[in-house]
Amino acid sequence: MQKSDIVDKERVVYLPQDEMPTHWYNILPDLPEPLAPPLDPKTLKPISPEPLFRIFAKELVMQEVSAERFIKIPDEVYDAYVYLPRPTPIVRARRLEKYLGTPAQIYYKCEYVNPTGSHKPNSAIAQAYYNKAQGIERVVTETGAGQWGSSLAMASSLFGLKCSVYMVRVSYDQKPGRRTMMQIHGADVVASPSNKTKFGQSLLKSDPNNYGSLGIAISEALEDCLTHENTRYCLGSVLNHVLLHQTIIGLESKKQFESIDVQPDVICGCIGGGSNFAGFAYPFMADKLKKKTNTEFIACEPKAVPSTTRGVYTYDFGDTAELTPLLKMYTLGHNYQAPPIYSGGLRYHGKAPSLCLLINKGYIKSVAYSQTEVFEAACILARTEGMITAPETAHCVRYVIDEALRCKKTGEKKIIAFNNCGHGLLDLQAYDAYLNRKLLDYEPATINVPKLVNQ
Amino acid sequence: MQKSDIVDKERVVYLPQDEMPTHWYNILPDLPEPLAPPLDPKTLKPISPEPLFRIFAKELVMQEVSAERFIKIPDEVYDAYVYLPRPTPIVRARRLEKYLGTPAQIYYKCEYVNPTGSHKPNSAIAQAYYNKAQGIERVVTETGAGQWGSSLAMASSLFGLKCSVYMVRVSYDQKPGRRTMMQIHGADVVASPSNKTKFGQSLLKSDPNNYGSLGIAISEALEDCLTHENTRYCLGSVLNHVLLHQTIIGLESKKQFESIDVQPDVICGCIGGGSNFAGFAYPFMADKLKKKTNTEFIACEPKAVPSTTRGVYTYDFGDTAELTPLLKMYTLGHNYQAPPIYSGGLRYHGKAPSLCLLINKGYIKSVAYSQTEVFEAACILARTEGMITAPETAHCVRYVIDEALRCKKTGEKKIIAFNNCGHGLLDLQAYDAYLNRKLLDYEPATINVPKLVNQ
Repeated sequence: MQKSDIVDKERVVYLPQDEMPTHWYNILPDLPEPLAPPLDPKTLKPISPEPLFRIFAKELVMQEVSAERFIKIPDEVYDAYVYLPRPTPIVRARRLEKYLGTPAQIYYKCEYVNPTGSHKPNSAIAQAYYNKAQGIERVVTETGAGQWGSSLAMASSLFGLKCSVYMVRVSYDQKPGRRTMMQIHGADVVASPSNKTKFGQSLLKSDPNNYGSLGIAISEALEDCLTHENTRYCLGSVLNHVLLHQTIIGLESKKQFESIDVQPDVICGCIGGGSNFAGFAYPFMADKLKKKTNTEFIACEPKAVPSTTRGVYTYDFGDTAELTPLLKMYTLGHNYQAPPIYSGGLRYHGKAPSLCLLINKGYIKSVAYSQTEVFEAACILARTEGMITAPETAHCVRYVIDEALRCKKTGEKKIIAFNNCGHGLLDLQAYDAYLNRKLLDYEPATINVPKLVNQ
Repeated sequence: MQKSDIVDKERVVYLPQDEMPTHWYNILPDLPEPLAPPLDPKTLKPISPEPLFRIFAKELVMQEVSAERFIKIPDEVYDAYVYLPRPTPIVRARRLEKYLGTPAQIYYKCEYVNPTGSHKPNSAIAQAYYNKAQGIERVVTETGAGQWGSSLAMASSLFGLKCSVYMVRVSYDQKPGRRTMMQIHGADVVASPSNKTKFGQSLLKSDPNNYGSLGIAISEALEDCLTHENTRYCLGSVLNHVLLHQTIIGLESKKQFESIDVQPDVICGCIGGGSNFAGFAYPFMADKLKKKTNTEFIACEPKAVPSTTRGVYTYDFGDTAELTPLLKMYTLGHNYQAPPIYSGGLRYHGKAPSLCLLINKGYIKSVAYSQTEVFEAACILARTEGMITAPETAHCVRYVIDEALRCKKTGEKKIIAFNNCGHGLLDLQAYDAYLNRKLLDYEPATINVPKLVNQ
């Protein structure tokens, strides 16, 4: 039968497997100024890599401080990427454009096309590989909504590692599906705070109904790591090496846009710790930092957890128990009690240091949205494009729709690209709440950022 | 950066968009003997197409009885296919092969890669298009597990049709996620039996807790269609035109296997009504019917609903209220009370007539499995390949694993291909029951097949 001549190549843009980038992009050497160094949680002095070897696999620590612009993806990781499968397609949202009646063009990168349904495996696979290669037997981590935990559980099962996950209790109870997913992949999942750690025990003693937080779960995972032999800790966002692994998203996207001769004017994503946004945006940001382009970068967060729109740019702990090194970032304070919004992946008090620096220097603009306006946008996307996106992702869908409507007024033919970093198939009860007008909007909780370091 | 040389082309096999088949394959003219004609439910005489025009869109009725071997895919449908996205990849399950230690090669076609997560959109999009093109305002259908209902709801929203879905009450209550999915896409969803139809009312009067069945839901959807203007009925399986639309799966697969110079020895799939199996298998069956190949075809069903392994090959109704034409098929009787297995998509009493003819003539072998052996296979697949499959699909995964282990004994290097027709992300509570040893196996219910026609 003859080939079809009606296919619209801009509609679904693929990248051949053997053109998948072979290296990750490390933005550190290209930043407008050096990152403020992480500080030792006890001495508050800059920390050297060595003590971190007990927490993370060596290679990951070295990547954390690497000055190399491009870092080779190991063959085993590359192979696992191809198998996810990667490269992931880019879709042009023509039906959404038509529905909005906008002259703008809207594209999204499909990072939900893999077994766990989000971008998280891009780093989970790399972290599982480096730990296995070092001879580590067990990795331990925390998870909020469960995207990271299920991705690390899957990656661990693929590389033959044991995996333990501390899952924020509110999600553990509200999202049994994600918990089951991790168990299918053979992971040991406990609700945090738990009785498995001293810190967890102390919290449960004072409040048996403590519904937990990402900061608490990180503290428990770290304590577990530090008190067990041949165990290392894995983190799903915030750190440089996690953002590094995620740049496969943007590196692929650049090639895909070049293949159809398109240059995005706006790069957009949601931010929890910052890894999906950075992974998509940094390869494009490299050109802006070199003054080659004038692309706009928009980071979207919840009004209930407004780290970059209402937080303070200062040194703070990454966890509640004050075990982690201090990072300079936009923070709501490491004791911030995030309201129970459905976007569990965006409930973290801080954000990635490199992302925060770029926001602080004006290279990235950040905006905040309430839960209901976010789900309204998600339903518009679903009814026009068919795709049901994660509540986290829907934060940037809201921006994209608003920007496209602005273009309708001004007549601008902007090219808007966003990272569709997760599907919402395990978040349908949140959609149900929205459709039945039971969804609540939340004001931010009390923001209390301790001044830990004189700057 | 250079191209990678480590990519294993057999691992994920793509097909370029513009090589997606432009025509569906109609097996009717190639069958070993003509299909027994559908019979009028009242006169029990062969029914002519005309009365069916009130039930289905005209074009679909004509496809139902078409003698053309290839039928062109309309441009609007082709475009929507590309956008799903299609073609879908074929994956080689090397990790599963390695885990089993088998010399056999295992491949699967990824039909879960679309917003609703199953093969159902292949026909839902075509049916929505033909109804819209005819000027129909509303389509009505039934759904068991929800894969078909959510796919028709999505397709209807894409083509601007109203959509009403009668959802088997047991699924409506057990699977709120699927219900929400349909509502996100704007469909009107009611639990069946419902008070919206006379038949539903009569059932609820005698048993207010009637948990429903696919046969009952079909009866209600048909009554709704026949009592409302400008409304047509859509069916998700069993009928010739539905199987026709699904052949895009096998037509793509043949091209993909040819591109890596592989000829499957075994083609395998699960059967509920038969559409995913037929869609994958019939393009390969065409060669077997022409004696060109000696491929084995294996259809997998649940022991609790053993239509083809313990049913009778005879004329029966497609629904409980005896409204549909009679079809000659393997059936457990149109009043069969399927046990509440988690594979809601496999709880139908009958099967597609063309499929049943090919089983009866020995071209297809069918096998039956219990729920626990099916979930065991699904967890082996998940822990080796990462992919969490639907309980329905897991029935053929069980066969594939057993066959691969037989090859291990005999040393045969068989090439086994199965249709991975759905993911299990909305079936995680079933996995949870399995992992916690709470999953029950069921014997078949009483099989009572009335002799309706002298043959």
